[in-house]
Parts: sequence; C-alpha cells; structure tokens
Amino acid sequence: MQEIRKDPILGRWVIIASERNNRPTDLAVHRELPVGGVCPFCYGSESHTPPEVLAFRPGQPFPNAPGWQVRVVPNKYPALRIEGELGRRAVGMYDMMNAIGAHEVVIESPLHQVQLADLPLEQVTCVLDAYVQRVQDLKQDRRFRYILVFKNQGAEAGATLEHAHTQIIATPVVPKRVSEEIEGARRHFDLHERCVFCDILSEETRAGVRIVAENETFVALEPFASRFPYETWILPRAHAPHFESLSRPALERLSEILRETLRRLDVTLERAPYNYVLHTSPSNGHEVAEYYHWHLEIMPKLTKVAGFEWGSDFYINPTPPEEAALVLRQARVD
Amino acid sequence: MQEIRKDPILGRWVIIASERNNRPTDLAVHRELPVGGVCPFCYGSESHTPPEVLAFRPGQPFPNAPGWQVRVVPNKYPALRIEGELGRRAVGMYDMMNAIGAHEVVIESPLHQVQLADLPLEQVTCVLDAYVQRVQDLKQDRRFRYILVFKNQGAEAGATLEHAHTQIIATPVVPKRVSEEIEGARRHFDLHERCVFCDILSEETRAGVRIVAENETFVALEPFASRFPYETWILPRAHAPHFESLSRPALERLSEILRETLRRLDVTLERAPYNYVLHTSPSNGHEVAEYYHWHLEIMPKLTKVAGFEWGSDFYINPTPPEEAALVLRQARVD
Repeated sequence: MQEIRKDPILGRWVIIASERNNRPTDLAVHRELPVGGVCPFCYGSESHTPPEVLAFRPGQPFPNAPGWQVRVVPNKYPALRIEGELGRRAVGMYDMMNAIGAHEVVIESPLHQVQLADLPLEQVTCVLDAYVQRVQDLKQDRRFRYILVFKNQGAEAGATLEHAHTQIIATPVVPKRVSEEIEGARRHFDLHERCVFCDILSEETRAGVRIVAENETFVALEPFASRFPYETWILPRAHAPHFESLSRPALERLSEILRETLRRLDVTLERAPYNYVLHTSPSNGHEVAEYYHWHLEIMPKLTKVAGFEWGSDFYINPTPPEEAALVLRQARVD
Repeated sequence: MQEIRKDPILGRWVIIASERNNRPTDLAVHRELPVGGVCPFCYGSESHTPPEVLAFRPGQPFPNAPGWQVRVVPNKYPALRIEGELGRRAVGMYDMMNAIGAHEVVIESPLHQVQLADLPLEQVTCVLDAYVQRVQDLKQDRRFRYILVFKNQGAEAGATLEHAHTQIIATPVVPKRVSEEIEGARRHFDLHERCVFCDILSEETRAGVRIVAENETFVALEPFASRFPYETWILPRAHAPHFESLSRPALERLSEILRETLRRLDVTLERAPYNYVLHTSPSNGHEVAEYYHWHLEIMPKLTKVAGFEWGSDFYINPTPPEEAALVLRQARVD
C-alpha cells in the first residue's frame, strides 16, 4: 500500500508508505550512515540503481557506465511512484489519492568522500544544471503540481547514504508550505503591488547587517525572522518566479555564491549537517509570475525541533541573524 | 537581546534569544542529556530553581522545600520573560515585539529516574491538575494570547534535563499552527455546522481500525493522515473547546487513558523518545467554542524530519496508522 492522505483540519498531505517487514523498533535505528559495503552511487555501481534519466559524461557515450560527472537516477525506494493514475477518492469523511509522483536522485560527483561545497566550481554548476534540466522535464508531466528539489547533508539532517546527492520529488498536489508562501506573497502584492522578496532584497541590501555574500546576480542573507541558527537564503536580485528558467551565466553565478555560502557555513559550523530546499513556483495551474520569487533556503541542523515548535510553528532561535551574518562574513574561505 | 520577530511572508513568529557567550559550534553539542551533578528538579534542590508558582505538597506547609508531589516553577532560562510591555513595533518593513510571555516547568515527580508513564495514576492526575491550574492562572494575564503545554521526553525529542517535566509557554500572539487549526475547524463548521473533531470521533469510533484505547470520556486514536509512525491523539468524546475547563472526574479519566497510551507506546517502541502537545483554544479574543475541540497530540520521535518535510510540510510516514493502531491495541500493558 502506498497512498497520499489529506489531514481534514490543516489540509496537509502525508505519504503513507507501508513497509510491512519492519518491526516497530526498526524505525528507531539507522542513526548513523551505513559505512562499508558497495556504494550504489560510485563508479562501477551503475547497475545498482535504476537506469539513469540524465547524465553528464563528456566524451563517453555509454549510459549507465562509469565516466559521468553528474548522474540522475530514479530513487530505488521511491516515496512516490511514476506509474499510474491519481485515483482521487474519498474514504468516509477523508480525502486521499494514489502515491503518484516522481522521486529522483542527483548524484553530485563520482567521488565518494566529498561534499558539494568541496567540488570545483564547474562541477557545482553541473549539479545545478542537472536540477534545471530535471525540473524542466518533470514539469511536462501534467499530473505533477510541484517539483521539490532538496538536499539532506549528514545523518542528522536525514541523509541515509553518505555519497553526496540531492533529491527531487514531484508531487501531484501543491504542498501546504508552498501554497502558504504563495498566498503570503500574494497578500503582500495585493497591498503594495510589489513582490515581497524584491522588497526584502531592497531592505536587506540597504541595511547590510544580514548579508552573508553577494555577486552581481545573487544575494545570500540571513532572514530577519530566521527559524534556525545560521539559516541562510540565496535569492536572485532580479525578480524571477521560476528557478528552471535560469540562464547559463546566472547558473554560474549561482554556483559561485552557493559554494561560497556553503564553505562559509562549513568553516563556521565545523561542517555541521544541513538541509537545503529550492523554493520555486508550482508547475501547473498557478499564475504567480508577478509576486513569487524563487530562492534557496539553507538550514543548518544545530538545534532540536521539539514540542514547542511542533505545537505552534513558532521557533526559538538562539543566534540572532545579524550575529550569524557577521560571523559568516568574517569566515576565511578561499 | 530577546525579541519576537514575524516572518513577512508566512506570518510565522520566531523568538530571537541571543546567548552571546556561545561559540557557533557550541550549538551542535548537548546531544546527550547531562548525567551526574545536582539535578535542580530533585528534593533538596528547590533553591536551584526560581520560587515555585504552584506545588502539591499534602501535609507539608513550607514552599520551596521538599515534600511536594508535583511542583511548578518558572524556567530559569526562559524563552519569553514575564516582565515588561509588548512594545509592538516595525523595523523597516518587518514586524517585531519584545519577548514577553511566561515559561514554566511542571516537575512531574520528586523521583529522578521515572517517566510520566511509570507514575501511579493519582500522580499522573496531579500532573494534569497542575496543567489545568496553570493554564487557568496564565489566562488571566491579558497580554497572553495562547498557553502552550508540551512535553519533550528524551534527548532526541529535545529534552535537556532528564528529570521528568512538562513545559508551559504563554505567548503574546496566537501561534501560526494554532491559527491554522482553528481556521481549518471553522471552515468545516461553516460547511457542515458541525465540529470537525466531533466528526472525526464519530467516523473513527464507527470504523474502529485506528482506535488505540477508549474509556467513557476519552478516545485515543491514530489520525487518518498521521505525519509520524505511531502518532497518537487523545480527544474527549464530548465537544469541549477548553482543556482547562475539565471536571475532576474527567481529569481522572484523562490520566487513565494518557498513562495507558504512553505505556502502549513504551512497550511497542521500547521507550522511544516522544513529544506531546496540548491543543486547546486560545486564551483571549477568540470565540471558537462551537468548532474547536481540545485534544492532546503525542508524536514518537522515530524518523528524521528532513529537507522534503521542511520545504513542503508534506510528510512521509512509513507506518500506516491502521497498522500502528493494531500493534498498540495488542501491546501487553498492566
């Protein structure tokens, strides 16, 4: 059984993915990443993954063989499956549908022991280019409403494999958090006829105290109401609703600022685990071009989310963003 | 500096609480609960906490001395402080206010090595009675909009002290998640002229497959769209917006079903860490009596919340609630 269910009060969706052979206490293990054994993301293990959907392999024409720089494959244990119909239906008072979607993995390098921030610039650009191409392709499937690109770095951040990778999940509904962000941005636009993210950029570049890094195309900053210590956002300076419409030069500027920002975080936080999530416009059926502005949110994993946060969506952040920005700006990176 | 800031897009609030003597990397430690040393919650340590605001100490008249059964004290390191004015103000385009509120700790037992589920029934009733009395008292302060009662059991669930305790935080704004729940319940009421939680109770008691435990006054169940494996809610059968209006007999029935439910979870999940959060109506300025129904949400900490969940508020739950309910019903508890 694999299905998507809707909470009747909050409108939040949940993927219910039964793994029947697990005992309840099996859930509590896997605190450390598995070490040893064959890594399915290394050269020579290409047959351990489903066939690739995209790979950059300069000068080497054979798919699913070594020689690639970046490789994208379907997740072997997908949260959502690509085949089938949505089958929207009611069960008693509740709403549900089949767990249809896509779940892919971007393998960021053939090297096992490196993290994204360690890679050469051109390699980071390749990774981002893979995001662009996969989002563009997945958007064509009219069953999908949103394409979520996210990265879990480190076991504490939820990674289950050590080899550097990003995940892409295409969902058949617009996720609640995305709808809320769009709704909030629309409210601001209705009031002011301006994009709230453009306003934030103008406020922040004027104030300066929460800026971490800048180049001609992007700004990295600590948000005013950051939930987590050292939470960092990267935004394009110019208004742009869709990440996947990035030009090649902009992609290169993004790879520069992303690598620099991750390195500043790594130096400051001694390579703390982190999550990052690409926030971009929904694929189909939403016209948000005027007021939504894509960006990347990086969340280092330093504090525990506990009862207070779960019950309130109210956060306690022990590090003011101004202080975090200052420390990150002063970090020595090459 | 201690202040509350509002996210300009989502309307989410964050407590920014600077602890200036911390180096960034200090945040990453404290993974294990401290052991040894003097526990401030044990008998004889009463002077290590701020003076108590409530205590049950049958036959022993002296405050802040041993002999108590349950003791409530202000948190020594409060997230929100009781003294001062709200000072709502704008900073550039942003909104903020002073971090005014209350932050208290309910010490559930004088014994150091026990958990709530291990306590005798009468002691659990005392703990719940302390919640009732503190919520009633904090409601009198017109600066507070919401009183959040929550428990972090175990280091993985965010506890920083081992001795069994619950926290109570009174906030000067209605937290986002609470507003959303009220709004969702109001939408259901507008459509159906019925409380959504009453509808859930009627659906669930009819279907039976997600019920964990029942008595004449309460039902414990796995919600249809549970975010987490073994997420369990306890709801009063009869419509009731305010937890703190519970009668004494109902409090005793609640203590029975809460203890039974926690024991079923403990046996099944080998005493996994958990959070629980009391969801009740806001204190002031909200008339939600017809459509909001208080309840307790228990969330065992078995899976990691990662990039996907952060970016979407969409969850992946590997254990269907029907399966969890069956296992919990079959668990052998005294």
